[in-house]
Amino acid sequence: MTIGVIATLTIAEGKNAEFVKIFTELSAQVNEKEPGCNFYQVHQSRKDPQVYVVLEQYANQEALDAHGKTDYFRSLGKQMGGCMAGAPDVELLDGV
Amino acid sequence: MTIGVIATLTIAEGKNAEFVKIFTELSAQVNEKEPGCNFYQVHQSRKDPQVYVVLEQYANQEALDAHGKTDYFRSLGKQMGGCMAGAPDVELLDGV
Repeated sequence: MTIGVIATLTIAEGKNAEFVKIFTELSAQVNEKEPGCNFYQVHQSRKDPQVYVVLEQYANQEALDAHGKTDYFRSLGKQMGGCMAGAPDVELLDGV
Repeated sequence: MTIGVIATLTIAEGKNAEFVKIFTELSAQVNEKEPGCNFYQVHQSRKDPQVYVVLEQYANQEALDAHGKTDYFRSLGKQMGGCMAGAPDVELLDGV
């Protein structure tokens, strides 16, 4: 069963360009290297320009677990830490 | 520029199976007939089993507009009306 993810990230003022640069690199790696990832795209909120929302879907729990353990996710995640205004909000959904 | 959509639908008690049946038909039509639709998948919330979340992405505004004008979207949307416990919440996001 597929798993959907809505990851909401709040970025500190002035850090948008840096965040987008890092996240674009992460997206490229995910979309290239993770066959179990059906969708992985970042979007900017229309309500608040400091909020970005990543829409994701994985083929199953195994693919989601593997995603979090990749070296690029860990290293780029660390780099992104300096851009964040707070902890991300991650909602998991069950594919129908 | 791509456009992301999070559509949150609250389904009336006892109408889940009927809703899923109708929505599965709609998803099949969208994924088959709309080249401008990059992603269109429905998920069930883990917080509330009566809540379903459709994660969507369109190539551009034109593709999103076309989606809403298709005959299948209109007719299946009408059928779904009887399953809903309230108006859907639709959030639009700008692809980065």
